[in-house]
Amino acid sequence: MTHPPHTGRLHGVLSPVLIPFDRQLHPDTTRFIHHCRWLLEQGVGLAVFGTTSEANSLSVPEKIALLDTLVAAGLPLTRMMPGTGCAAFTDTVELTRHAVQLGCAGVLMLPPFYYKGVSDEGLFRSYAEVIERVGDSRLRIYLYHIPPVSQVPISLSLIERLLKAYPDTIAGIKDSSGDWENMRSILEQFQPHGFDVFAGNEFFLLSLLRGGGAGCITATANVNPGAIAQLAKQWQQPDADTQQATLNALRDVFKQFPMIPALKAAIAHYAQDPGWVTVRPPLVELDDAQRTTLVQALRSVGFSMPSLGK
Amino acid sequence: MTHPPHTGRLHGVLSPVLIPFDRQLHPDTTRFIHHCRWLLEQGVGLAVFGTTSEANSLSVPEKIALLDTLVAAGLPLTRMMPGTGCAAFTDTVELTRHAVQLGCAGVLMLPPFYYKGVSDEGLFRSYAEVIERVGDSRLRIYLYHIPPVSQVPISLSLIERLLKAYPDTIAGIKDSSGDWENMRSILEQFQPHGFDVFAGNEFFLLSLLRGGGAGCITATANVNPGAIAQLAKQWQQPDADTQQATLNALRDVFKQFPMIPALKAAIAHYAQDPGWVTVRPPLVELDDAQRTTLVQALRSVGFSMPSLGK
Repeated sequence: MTHPPHTGRLHGVLSPVLIPFDRQLHPDTTRFIHHCRWLLEQGVGLAVFGTTSEANSLSVPEKIALLDTLVAAGLPLTRMMPGTGCAAFTDTVELTRHAVQLGCAGVLMLPPFYYKGVSDEGLFRSYAEVIERVGDSRLRIYLYHIPPVSQVPISLSLIERLLKAYPDTIAGIKDSSGDWENMRSILEQFQPHGFDVFAGNEFFLLSLLRGGGAGCITATANVNPGAIAQLAKQWQQPDADTQQATLNALRDVFKQFPMIPALKAAIAHYAQDPGWVTVRPPLVELDDAQRTTLVQALRSVGFSMPSLGK
Repeated sequence: MTHPPHTGRLHGVLSPVLIPFDRQLHPDTTRFIHHCRWLLEQGVGLAVFGTTSEANSLSVPEKIALLDTLVAAGLPLTRMMPGTGCAAFTDTVELTRHAVQLGCAGVLMLPPFYYKGVSDEGLFRSYAEVIERVGDSRLRIYLYHIPPVSQVPISLSLIERLLKAYPDTIAGIKDSSGDWENMRSILEQFQPHGFDVFAGNEFFLLSLLRGGGAGCITATANVNPGAIAQLAKQWQQPDADTQQATLNALRDVFKQFPMIPALKAAIAHYAQDPGWVTVRPPLVELDDAQRTTLVQALRSVGFSMPSLGK
């Protein structure tokens, strides 16, 4: 059985939105709202509280306050997929419930990530516990498979079991494994059941869309949203491979640096807004030499962020 | 320069106290207080909120409430070393501040554990941020090195830098690497400066005490507290190696099972209290076959928990 794509579902390109911090390391809500608005204008949805957002360096109350701030600023909940997966399921329940009650289109949910080598049975129970406790038919969960960071993978058999138990709630996955074979297997096995597959970066965007995938949720959409969103719209055009190659060239630049500090440094540079460089520990901002090298490398691939204001 | 041991400091054996849960997965405070009292009676201190405690499956408010419950029950803060390290330093600050203000003798502090491959500079800043924000001269931090689980190791150079910057606050380490060479290096380099080294399990207890270490903080102290505490007191006695071998034989039994569910199953069995088996996801309790095998294996090494009541 093949499901048609769900109407109203999130698709295309989303950005795990960087969170700017002030000197006291508090989230800078003015810069944050501005950045979210700019991303939306560029055609990119808001996967707030992703890995790139330093979300796991924020407490649940800090994340709830930030989400409320976005809503109060009038940003569209239909374009939001906040990350809500924490180490403790009680935290995950609280944050997820809040996101659903606000009306967010979906949530991106890490498995509990402290204990390692846990079983699929344990991970199934973790997700089930959250789903049952949130108890809201509007909940749409995108599983977050990012083994290089979480060290807790989401297997195909876990997806299968979750989809069978909660077919209306389990909406898709963000696959940040960097392993195309895994993405292809998930697409083949679950996409026909209406399960939306997002790649964890734009390297796989074209292949994924050609294979029936939903799009990508990518860190570099924080600095290059327009071009990535354009490929997601024009993937059937003859120049799609050329567009993909251009995206890859920029991504390759960022890959040479610690990703989150490098993205913040790029925004600080192009927006002429030095406050943007701040990260929360345990991350460390780029040093002066790294920043110089980054800007030169970005220039060498013809990159600029002309439309980014302060 | 060699410091004499600090008076009043935690030493000997501590247990990362198991947290019993009810059927709704809430902490069962009655069983918890009872278990803490029994551990104290057996000569073991309370490292509440360790890895074995499933502490990272509890939210900060849940941990604060449990700590308050112990204090209200009159348990001695001089014997408490709660784990307070969370993924977000804002959570770590809140929990640590609470523990210090209550008067806990020390805190066991994981590094932030979501991001991997972070630098010593980033980890230094994480600990420094917590120390500065808690801002309390009573704070005593035991660093928590448990790379198999946290995947974020604490290097010797990080210890050196932290000790230099905060000599009165950085009190010691729990080394759960399972790597004796690492423990030996830490002992040689930092013990002479009054830095207390605890092994992460009792396998290393005798070697560590002979090398000038402070003791151990070990999961199996939840079921075998008296014998482990006895070796910590009698390590200079002629039968110390025999005592160590007996401890090892029991630990070897538990090593064959998922540790936390196995410890809970053992207590449930010996206390005839089936409610003890419950774990929070992503952990899974032992199945019937595993429980039977465990009990048989415990019997084969002559183990019992006679003094454990309900």
